[in-house]
Amino acid sequence: MKNFEFYNPTKIVFGPGRVAELANLVPAAARVLILFGGASAQKTGTLDEVKAALGSRSVHEFGGIEPNPTYETLMKAVEQVKREKIDFLLAVGGGSVIDGAKFVAAAACFDGEPWDILLKGGGQVQQALPFGTVLTLPATGSEMNSGSVVTRKATHTKLAFMSRHVFPQFSVLDPTKTYTLPTKQIANGIADAFVHTVEQYLTYPVQALPQDRFAEGLLQTLIEIAPKALAEPEDYDTRANLMWTATLALNGLIGAGVPQDWATHMIGHELTALYGIDHARTLAIVLPSLLKVKRETKRAKLLQYAERVWHITSGTDDERIDAAIARTRAFFESLGIQTQLSGYALGQEAVDAVVAQLEAHGMTALGEHKDISLEVSRAILQAAL
Amino acid sequence: MKNFEFYNPTKIVFGPGRVAELANLVPAAARVLILFGGASAQKTGTLDEVKAALGSRSVHEFGGIEPNPTYETLMKAVEQVKREKIDFLLAVGGGSVIDGAKFVAAAACFDGEPWDILLKGGGQVQQALPFGTVLTLPATGSEMNSGSVVTRKATHTKLAFMSRHVFPQFSVLDPTKTYTLPTKQIANGIADAFVHTVEQYLTYPVQALPQDRFAEGLLQTLIEIAPKALAEPEDYDTRANLMWTATLALNGLIGAGVPQDWATHMIGHELTALYGIDHARTLAIVLPSLLKVKRETKRAKLLQYAERVWHITSGTDDERIDAAIARTRAFFESLGIQTQLSGYALGQEAVDAVVAQLEAHGMTALGEHKDISLEVSRAILQAAL
Repeated sequence: MKNFEFYNPTKIVFGPGRVAELANLVPAAARVLILFGGASAQKTGTLDEVKAALGSRSVHEFGGIEPNPTYETLMKAVEQVKREKIDFLLAVGGGSVIDGAKFVAAAACFDGEPWDILLKGGGQVQQALPFGTVLTLPATGSEMNSGSVVTRKATHTKLAFMSRHVFPQFSVLDPTKTYTLPTKQIANGIADAFVHTVEQYLTYPVQALPQDRFAEGLLQTLIEIAPKALAEPEDYDTRANLMWTATLALNGLIGAGVPQDWATHMIGHELTALYGIDHARTLAIVLPSLLKVKRETKRAKLLQYAERVWHITSGTDDERIDAAIARTRAFFESLGIQTQLSGYALGQEAVDAVVAQLEAHGMTALGEHKDISLEVSRAILQAAL
Repeated sequence: MKNFEFYNPTKIVFGPGRVAELANLVPAAARVLILFGGASAQKTGTLDEVKAALGSRSVHEFGGIEPNPTYETLMKAVEQVKREKIDFLLAVGGGSVIDGAKFVAAAACFDGEPWDILLKGGGQVQQALPFGTVLTLPATGSEMNSGSVVTRKATHTKLAFMSRHVFPQFSVLDPTKTYTLPTKQIANGIADAFVHTVEQYLTYPVQALPQDRFAEGLLQTLIEIAPKALAEPEDYDTRANLMWTATLALNGLIGAGVPQDWATHMIGHELTALYGIDHARTLAIVLPSLLKVKRETKRAKLLQYAERVWHITSGTDDERIDAAIARTRAFFESLGIQTQLSGYALGQEAVDAVVAQLEAHGMTALGEHKDISLEVSRAILQAAL
C-alpha cells in the first residue's frame, strides 16, 4: 500500500424529503446565493423547495450554469457574490453546478486573476466561501470532494483545480430528485461513476486489499443496478444505490493509498472541449481503447478485474483480458452510449485535433506510469476510431 | 437503503515514519497532554519519537491508561488537564487509550458530573478539547470515529458514549508501529475488526448494495491477511492492510444506511466487565452462538455471507448457513482465540451473572430488531457454554 492522507469533512444527508433540513444546515444569518443550471431546477419544484427551507434568510439566485461550466459564466456569479455581499453558496444541481460553485467560492476570495486558480491547480487557494449542495444528478462525485473542472470557452481549455477549502460543508442527497432526469443523463452518470472507479483501480497492484475490494464493489453495484436504473426511474432503492455509489466512486476513499491513472479523463476532456461530447461519453470512447493499448502495464489488474468484476475465469490470460475489455465496452453500449469516435461522426481529423490540444495543454505524460506520451494517446484514439 | 447521515472529519495520515508530521499537525502554541497506556510506548521508542516531533511545545504526560479504560483513571487525567491548562490531547496507543482520550476531552469541558456523559450516551456533550491520535494497535477503529467505551471499576459497569465533538482531528497510522505487538493483540485486533463489520452487515437486507460489498470486502481482506498477520510481524503490506481495514470497519461508512445489530458487543461488554476477558475474545465467544440462535431473522444475510464471504455454494440453505457459522467459529479459533465459555473456565454461573448484568444495565431488547430479550441473551450464552 502506498502512503496516503485521507480527509473528507463533507456531511452527507441522505434520504427523501431531506431538502427541508437546509433550514438547519445553512447558517441562520447567511446571505445565500443559490447556484443552478437550467430550467429543470425550477420546473421540478426543487428550487421552490430549497427556498422554502431557507425561510427568511436573504436569498439570491444565479441560474444558467451550463454543463461543463465556463469561466465566463462563473465570473458573473463571482461579481454577483461581491455585489450582494453573499457569504454562503448553495449549489442545486449536478456536478457542473457543484464544480461551478467551488470555483465561485474560491474565486470570490482570491486575490488576483481567478483563472490562475485553474492554471496552477488550486494549490494557491487560501480560503473560499462556505457552501453546501443539493444534488439532483448522480454522476461526478463533486458533492463529496474538493475537485472542480472549469472550461474557458474562449480558448476551449478545460482545466481542473483541487483545494481542501472547497469541500462542500454538506450535501443533501435525495434519490427521488433523480426520478425526472432524462434516461440519457442517468446513463451518463453510471458511465461516469464507473470510469471514476476504474481510474483509481485498473493500474498496477500495490497490495491495497480493501481499496481493491471497495472499487470492485462499486463496479459490481453499477453493473447490477444499470438495467433498472434506466428502465424504472422511480425505483427508489435503485436510484439510492446509484446516487451513493457515484458519490463513493470519487470521494477520495478508493483512491487513498493506490496509484491512479486519469489518462482517460485527460483525453476525454479534450473531446468535450473540442466537440461538446458529454463528459461521460468521452470516457466511454477512450477507456476501452486505453485498456487495449495499455494492456501490458495493466496486465495484473486487468486479470483481477476480469475475475472479480466480470467473473471471467476460463481461457488464457490474454483471452480473459480481451473478454474483460469487451465486457466493459458492451456495458457502456448497453447504456445506450456509443464507444467509438465514428458513433459521434468523428474520424481521423479528431485524432489529430485532440493530440494537438493535449500537446497545447502539456498533457504529454499521462497515466499511472506517466508513460502515455502524445504518441500513445494517438494510438489510443486511433483504436477508438 | 435506509436514510442516513454520514460525517467524519478525521484526517488520516498513513505510512511509515509519519509521526514526525505531528510537528505540523498539532497547533504550534498548544499545551499538549500525551495520553498513553503501559510501558510499551516508552520501550518501543514511540513516545520519544512523539516528543521529538512536538519540539518546543509545552508537553505533559499521563500514562497508565489500562485496557478497557476506567473512569477512575481517566478522571485523574481530567484533573491534570485542568491543573496544567492543557488545550490539546494526543493519544498514543490503541483503542483503549483513544477511547480514554475522548472521554477526557469531553469531561474536561463538561459542566456537571462527567459520569453522566456515559449514562446519557453523550448527547449532552456541547464541546470537547481538540485531540489527535498516534495509533499503535489496529483493532477498534476509535482512531476515526466519535465513539468511546469507558468502564467504572467500582460497579463493573462498561458504558459507551458518542459525540460529534470527539472525532480525532487527525490520526497518524504507521503500520510499522505494530511490528512489536504480541501475537495475541494482533489476533484480537483481527477478531475485533471482523465483528465490527459483522455487526453492521449481518442483519437483514435493505438493498444497500455498496455498503454490503464494502463490508464483504473488509471481511474477505481480514480472512486473507490473518495467517500472515500472525506469522510475519514485519510484513509491511499485511500490517498496512490490517491497520486500514480495522479503521474502515468502524468509521461510520459501512454502517451508513443499513440496520445494525451490536448485541454481540453488548453481551460481550458484560463478560469483560465481570471476568476481564479481552474485548475481542468476548466477541468471538458470543458471535457464533448469536448467529445460530438468530438464524431465522438473519437468514437472507447469512446466505449472502456464506456465498460472498466464504464462497459456500453447495448444500441446502440451512447447510450453507451452518457451514458459514462453522467457518466463522473456525476463523476465530485459527487466530488462537477460544470461542466457548468453557475455554475461559466459565460455566453456567457466568450465564446467570451476565444475564443479571444485562438486566441491571437495561440491555433487555438488543439487536437490529430489538428482539434479543434477556431470555434470548440467555439462550445465546447457553449455546456458548
